[in-house]
Amino acid sequence: MATPSPGHSITYRVAAPASFSASTDLAAVIADHGAALTALDVIESTRSELVVDVSCDTRGPDHAQEIEQALAALDGVDVRKSSDRTFLLHLGGKLESTPTVTLKNRDDLSRAYTPGVARVCQAIAENPEDARRLTIKRNTVAVVTDGSAVLGLGNIGPEASMPVMEGKAVLFKQFADVDAWPVALDTQDTEEIIAVCKAIAPAYGGINLEDISAPRCFEIEARLRDELDIPVFHDDQHGTAIVTLAALTNALKVVEKQLSDVRIVVSGAGAAGHAIVKLLLAAGAHDVVVCGRSGALTSAQEHADPHRAWLAQHTNPRGVTGSLKEAVVGADVFIGVSAPDLLDEADIAAMAEGSIVFAMSNPDPEVDPAAASRHAAVIATGRSDYPNQINNVLAFPGFFRGLLDAHCHDITDEMLRVAAEAIAETIADDELNAGHIIPSVFDPRVATNVAEAVAGVARQEAGSAEGSADTDDAARRNGRTAAPTSAEAAR
Amino acid sequence: MATPSPGHSITYRVAAPASFSASTDLAAVIADHGAALTALDVIESTRSELVVDVSCDTRGPDHAQEIEQALAALDGVDVRKSSDRTFLLHLGGKLESTPTVTLKNRDDLSRAYTPGVARVCQAIAENPEDARRLTIKRNTVAVVTDGSAVLGLGNIGPEASMPVMEGKAVLFKQFADVDAWPVALDTQDTEEIIAVCKAIAPAYGGINLEDISAPRCFEIEARLRDELDIPVFHDDQHGTAIVTLAALTNALKVVEKQLSDVRIVVSGAGAAGHAIVKLLLAAGAHDVVVCGRSGALTSAQEHADPHRAWLAQHTNPRGVTGSLKEAVVGADVFIGVSAPDLLDEADIAAMAEGSIVFAMSNPDPEVDPAAASRHAAVIATGRSDYPNQINNVLAFPGFFRGLLDAHCHDITDEMLRVAAEAIAETIADDELNAGHIIPSVFDPRVATNVAEAVAGVARQEAGSAEGSADTDDAARRNGRTAAPTSAEAAR
Repeated sequence: MATPSPGHSITYRVAAPASFSASTDLAAVIADHGAALTALDVIESTRSELVVDVSCDTRGPDHAQEIEQALAALDGVDVRKSSDRTFLLHLGGKLESTPTVTLKNRDDLSRAYTPGVARVCQAIAENPEDARRLTIKRNTVAVVTDGSAVLGLGNIGPEASMPVMEGKAVLFKQFADVDAWPVALDTQDTEEIIAVCKAIAPAYGGINLEDISAPRCFEIEARLRDELDIPVFHDDQHGTAIVTLAALTNALKVVEKQLSDVRIVVSGAGAAGHAIVKLLLAAGAHDVVVCGRSGALTSAQEHADPHRAWLAQHTNPRGVTGSLKEAVVGADVFIGVSAPDLLDEADIAAMAEGSIVFAMSNPDPEVDPAAASRHAAVIATGRSDYPNQINNVLAFPGFFRGLLDAHCHDITDEMLRVAAEAIAETIADDELNAGHIIPSVFDPRVATNVAEAVAGVARQEAGSAEGSADTDDAARRNGRTAAPTSAEAAR
Repeated sequence: MATPSPGHSITYRVAAPASFSASTDLAAVIADHGAALTALDVIESTRSELVVDVSCDTRGPDHAQEIEQALAALDGVDVRKSSDRTFLLHLGGKLESTPTVTLKNRDDLSRAYTPGVARVCQAIAENPEDARRLTIKRNTVAVVTDGSAVLGLGNIGPEASMPVMEGKAVLFKQFADVDAWPVALDTQDTEEIIAVCKAIAPAYGGINLEDISAPRCFEIEARLRDELDIPVFHDDQHGTAIVTLAALTNALKVVEKQLSDVRIVVSGAGAAGHAIVKLLLAAGAHDVVVCGRSGALTSAQEHADPHRAWLAQHTNPRGVTGSLKEAVVGADVFIGVSAPDLLDEADIAAMAEGSIVFAMSNPDPEVDPAAASRHAAVIATGRSDYPNQINNVLAFPGFFRGLLDAHCHDITDEMLRVAAEAIAETIADDELNAGHIIPSVFDPRVATNVAEAVAGVARQEAGSAEGSADTDDAARRNGRTAAPTSAEAAR
């Protein structure tokens, strides 16, 4: 049974007879029904009546309804209204478009708009690269989706995907001061998605593809990387791969094994699985077996899908065949990005000594973490209510911060690798243990470390030509109102 | 010769020998060269040297250069750096994407992002209209351009158009709390522009088309109005038309004439001219003559362009022929949205008694306002350095505020007309005179008045079904953190 979650926090406004025990009676109902009371606020009080806001975390809508009925069943109690804090928070959306300049008078207007703005336009027309200095392209990323594979909800379409895209933009800003804007597309046609991304690109310094279903996501990303001069990153692939490699790096330290030596089984040949395998190989793994729905992929099979064919050709050096359950026997590492409950306790017991289990299917993992913990040395999941949460939030904000700071045009595997390394190294060796292989998403050092690592590689790869832009940029982020004398010569 | 403008404000950092007269010597150079000194700030001072920031408005880059050389020619003076305040203001762009929620802890994260956000997504998937309550669609407008007709600069492309689009977004927010986002498209193909706008529409509550050249702008707007369920507004057309009608309404009061009686000549058959004529006719004008480059349009001519043909069929009831100069003889009103210096003083003298001249070609009007003022009763231009500036900023922010507040799906002529009326009525009868027919762009009442008028018509046209949404929305804008009990029942 699910535990009460702040994602399902409800506030009931309740009128009750004024009595010594009214509040405790209300609290008792919450406790009796297994919800977690978070606040009791008296809103009005008269001689005869109390109005109380009762806030609690519930297990979900049915549970919230059950509690409302139980409160209403109390003698003399009337539930006037119930409010869902998650919905309240979403009223009107989660983002604003905010000016960085204020127009107090006509002089301001004549600089930020006509006639002054015309000179800035002309400067960019003469030197398009100036767009990265003089427009929002400098610090802005598009979060692009077609709504085809949103969270675990599937193909819910662009409108319904917006709360996730807005949430992503909130995370970009909060964790790495990247301005991100949601682009939820009313098309699921590969060519049209590519055309739209190319058309809107002038405003952006990068594109973060999000929740686009496989295999279209592969072609869309590959084509855009080819045809655009700004970096394109599919978070469901590379964000997941970066954080997985980071967690695995530290987990291997805990069990004192080497990436190049271990046997790894990856369950799931979709977007995330594909990216994880590619990055593991780039980082030095040799023995990786990928299992799809019909078991281990081998190069001996025919693969109509070119992405599966690539995986089959580049993995499984020992030619393992059979089911996932057979493949994990003797394995050092299990990485699941697939479906709930594919393995049971006996399967984990059959793995090698000091095994590592990353069961990341969400919300229900590939194996019950409690059962797995009786045999595995290190366990991680995608959930926040177990230790070691593999969460993309650790990767994408800092990753784009680094790309933007370095005025990067392309993403390379080396950038992904150093990002993983930066996340892993945020945990010092003496802090590292089986219950703490990955930093908290609220650890402020993570994004900074990732950004520096990524920007370092980007500058190295681009040569040192663009390196000097960065000081200005940092100054700009630290205080938008640069003194007139600190930059920009007259033109 | 142009006058010094804050759009060309330069700050020179100057090192000068420490002497009693150093600052006055610097100021004298500025004055001698016809620039306007705005500030002298001493940055450093030692026994032997002063470092001073000299700020002044110049006439443009050549003038700024001339002043720099004159300063450097002073005995012992060294110009260390010159900074252009317009460029400084644009560093990094003029917009941010700002969260309206803060994620302080995991509970916040679980409401704004996973797992809580999934329920909000599901609610929208079940009822797509909820996107207008639970996402930024509620308050957000796309400012779409292809960079083909930017200001007076012409076809400078999408990157170079961004400073204008960002500026527009700043104006939307500052004047009407509308969140606007620039969409600068790397295509000038009509069909592709339409396809992209349709694809990105789910995130937006409206589309403001901007600086797209005629005649493509007509088809793009018409098709999008047809094919989208959010309002689409081409500002170069309708924004200009609204403010022109507002100014004309008040100008006619000043000269005590009726719109239905006056003879009007419109110079310019492009996007703005077309929209102005349509709105004048909808507002009750009867005698309108449109002049293109080859003179008055008449229905007797052949017009290959359907937009010109429409104008010819619906205007010129007296069958006026000949050049613009011939057409204005005896006219009551001249409205120019065409090109500089088409008319001279004699032409204005030949107009009817109590004539009204709107010479809006920018930056150089159709007739010299000083010369025109010797004969016309009321004069307006597009410039900020003459009285009566016809500026779209008076229209578009409030117009979209009204559309969004009323959850409007379509724009009608009646909305344009009441918007003009609202702008005109912002000036009380006892404030009205020939030098003040139109309110200042900084008059905070304008956007509110326009919004209320437009929303009123929108609600009337939609029936009263959607009227109740507005109270919530206003509360939301006044304070994003609604109390949990003020809205939203549990789902």
